[in-house]
Amino acid sequence: MREFLVLSRKGITSPDFNFKDLPGFCGRIDLLARCVNSALWVSHGIRRDVVFHTILQGKPDPPKYIRFEGDKLKKVPPDERGIALFIQKALERYQEGKEIESTPGIFVSKKSLQEVVKENSDKEIYILHEKGIPINEVEIGENPFFILGDHIGLPKKDEKFCLRFGKRVSLGKKSYLASHCITIVNYLLDQRETE
Amino acid sequence: MREFLVLSRKGITSPDFNFKDLPGFCGRIDLLARCVNSALWVSHGIRRDVVFHTILQGKPDPPKYIRFEGDKLKKVPPDERGIALFIQKALERYQEGKEIESTPGIFVSKKSLQEVVKENSDKEIYILHEKGIPINEVEIGENPFFILGDHIGLPKKDEKFCLRFGKRVSLGKKSYLASHCITIVNYLLDQRETE
Repeated sequence: MREFLVLSRKGITSPDFNFKDLPGFCGRIDLLARCVNSALWVSHGIRRDVVFHTILQGKPDPPKYIRFEGDKLKKVPPDERGIALFIQKALERYQEGKEIESTPGIFVSKKSLQEVVKENSDKEIYILHEKGIPINEVEIGENPFFILGDHIGLPKKDEKFCLRFGKRVSLGKKSYLASHCITIVNYLLDQRETE
Repeated sequence: MREFLVLSRKGITSPDFNFKDLPGFCGRIDLLARCVNSALWVSHGIRRDVVFHTILQGKPDPPKYIRFEGDKLKKVPPDERGIALFIQKALERYQEGKEIESTPGIFVSKKSLQEVVKENSDKEIYILHEKGIPINEVEIGENPFFILGDHIGLPKKDEKFCLRFGKRVSLGKKSYLASHCITIVNYLLDQRETE
């Protein structure tokens, strides 16, 4: 299993979306949707061995935790608007105090980044960061769990918390979009599997 | 300079867009927009050394040739809808019989895939294909020009034409989305540059 978690610092936490403005009004839901695409899609299909997590920290009711489980997903399309519709549906069906499966394979609840990281601390945790160990020098096992920031990045205190359970790895000196980082990590892991 | 060309078999060739349906009504303009994003964007900026070409072959007036020159682009955002708006603007300002710069760095004219490939045949042409030579075994020079199909792929006769000027290279056994292929190629070339 491969897992990715993206912290969405401004991602909207109510279903009142404006689909004409996913970047601004919705707090970079466009970016988040591209991360979902990068994590889960290959040509003509879904990666069934991937789980994608996100914590939305924008207005009006943060945090919201949404999880996409590749092996259960149905009908999620690869485009931004289409993925955003599923995120909206999750926020619409959210219920206080429990986890809801809003559509097949998509789960929503109220949890913070630190809670989700702690729950997954039995996995191999890697924080993607330009100053980390080059990824080619790291032995990555069966169940890696990669944590990424969005365009703003992880807050210092959250990064410090994550580092209690894992380490920083780097894709090189260039700073890439979060969605591109996920595509590259998936590719590098695919390559290792076929070696 | 790095160049990418994506053939969009169904991409709409008039400015009558339906932004609620970039995948269907507009003929996978969502896919094309993600390719533009992958070719041109790094974190907080544009790759000035990249040129992105596309040939739209959908209804009602194919073909249309649109070129994005990274060193001249202004205000193009990274999201699908935002990029689609610039593609729409190009189609709106298109004029028969000449090439128009519709917005800074974006050029539109009527040209076929074969014409564009022939014009660029002094460059190192590579056709991305699962059955090509593994990209790690290929020495790639200063001015590569990569050709990719969309979700349908290159027609046999076009592929044959392109192979007169270049060769097939592969990213491995897995078949990736076109936008992911571009992200991966950019990453691999970045890595070679810093080696």
